[in-house]
Amino acid sequence: MSEGRLIGVGLGPGDPELLTVKAVRLIQAAPVVAFFAKAGRRGNAREIVDSWLTPANEELPLFYPVTTEVPFVAPKYRGALAAFYEQSAERIAAHLRAGRDVALLSEGDPLFYGSFMHLFVRLRGRFATTIVPGVPGMCGAWSAAAMPIAWGDDVMVVAPGTLPFVELVARLKHADAAAIMKIGRNLPKVREALAVCGMLARAIYVERATTENEIVMPLGERPDDAAPYFSMVLVPGEGRRP
Amino acid sequence: MSEGRLIGVGLGPGDPELLTVKAVRLIQAAPVVAFFAKAGRRGNAREIVDSWLTPANEELPLFYPVTTEVPFVAPKYRGALAAFYEQSAERIAAHLRAGRDVALLSEGDPLFYGSFMHLFVRLRGRFATTIVPGVPGMCGAWSAAAMPIAWGDDVMVVAPGTLPFVELVARLKHADAAAIMKIGRNLPKVREALAVCGMLARAIYVERATTENEIVMPLGERPDDAAPYFSMVLVPGEGRRP
Repeated sequence: MSEGRLIGVGLGPGDPELLTVKAVRLIQAAPVVAFFAKAGRRGNAREIVDSWLTPANEELPLFYPVTTEVPFVAPKYRGALAAFYEQSAERIAAHLRAGRDVALLSEGDPLFYGSFMHLFVRLRGRFATTIVPGVPGMCGAWSAAAMPIAWGDDVMVVAPGTLPFVELVARLKHADAAAIMKIGRNLPKVREALAVCGMLARAIYVERATTENEIVMPLGERPDDAAPYFSMVLVPGEGRRP
Repeated sequence: MSEGRLIGVGLGPGDPELLTVKAVRLIQAAPVVAFFAKAGRRGNAREIVDSWLTPANEELPLFYPVTTEVPFVAPKYRGALAAFYEQSAERIAAHLRAGRDVALLSEGDPLFYGSFMHLFVRLRGRFATTIVPGVPGMCGAWSAAAMPIAWGDDVMVVAPGTLPFVELVARLKHADAAAIMKIGRNLPKVREALAVCGMLARAIYVERATTENEIVMPLGERPDDAAPYFSMVLVPGEGRRP
C-alpha cells in the first residue's frame, strides 16, 4: 500500500467562490480534510468550504490550545503551540501512513503567513506533498476596495501591525504601496506610523473582505477602537501610469 | 436598455485550473472577453482561458503597439502606450454602452501590477465594475518551489528588478522576505543586490511557475544570461516558528 499525500490547499480570502478550480477538485477527492479552528468553534476555514465538502470527506478539525489573548512571546504560549503543531502533524501522519491523502485547508495562500506552514515543515521530509496556491487575503481586500495597489516600479511592503512602532515606520518609509495585516489592537499605532510616513491620507481600512460582512472605508474615518484580527490597512502605490 | 458591466478577472499564475470558480463563472457568462496580447501573438492570458471559453464568448483582443524592447522612459513608448490604453478603453466602452458585459482578463491578480488597471481607471467613473481577485504570479512561484515565504512578523517586500541597483539594495535591506519580479536582463544586478543584503544564499529562481515549462532552482545555480521577463526571484523569510 502506498502512502498518502499531504495537500496544502489555499482557500482564498473568504468568498467560497474564490477557491480555485484545483482547490475544489483536490478537496473533494481527499479522503481526509483537515483544518485549524479555535476550540469550541467551527472555524473560518471550515465555513469557507462548507458548500464544497462531500459526504465522502472525513473531517479532521485541529483545535488550537490557546488563543491570541496570550502574547506570542510568552514561553507558555510558544511551548503550547509547538506541542499542538507536533500533535497535529502526527494525527495527519497517521492518515498518510494508512494511505489516505489529507487536504489541509489554509485561508488565503498556504505559504504566505499560513498556519499550514508549521505542519508542512514537520511533514515534508516524510511524505509526498502538493501545494495549491490561493488568493491571499490582501488581494481580496484591495479587490473589495476596487483599489489598484501597485503600479509599474512601485515597491510594495507587506507588514504585520504587530511590529513595534519604530520598526513599522522604518519599513513603511521604504514602501510605495503597503498592506498592513494583523491590525487588531494595533490600529492607533498603525495610524500614527502611516501619518509619520505621509501615507495616512490615502490609507484604506478593510475588514472581512469578500464576505457578507465586508467593510471598506478610508482609514481616516475609522474610529480607533480595536479592529478584528483579520482586518487590514492598505496604502495604494502611485507609480507610473501611461 | 441598461449598460454593461466591466469585470476585471484575475487568471492566476498560469495553470488554467488556478482560476477561481468565480472567474470561470463570470468569464463564461460574459458576452465579450477582452485580453491584452503582443501583436501577432495569441497572448498568455488567452492561452490560460482556452479551455474555459465557450462559443458564446465574443473575443476582443487588445494588441500592444510596442514591446518591452523600447525602454519605458522613452517618451515615444509612453505616448504610444497612453494612446493604446485610451483606444482600448473606448473599444470596451462601446460594448458596455451597447449593454454587453465585458470580462477583461488579467494574469495573476487584476489590481497587483496588472495592465488591467490602466483601463480600469479610465472606465470606472463611467460604468459599473466588478473585480475578481486572482492568485498572483508570486504565489504560484513559491508554491512551485514549495517554499514558505513569510512567517509570523516577517516583513515581505515585493520589488521590480528594474529598479536601479542602489534603490534595490535600499529596499531589500528592510525586507525579511522578498519577491523580485521583472527579472529579464536584470539578473546580474538582482544577484549583486541580494549578495550585498546577505540574502543570496537562500534566494530561489523560478520561471513559468505552475505551467509545463516550470523551472525552479537555487539562484546560485542560475547562469547570468537573460531570464524571461516573467521569471522571479524569491527570498524566504526566517521568522518565528513555534
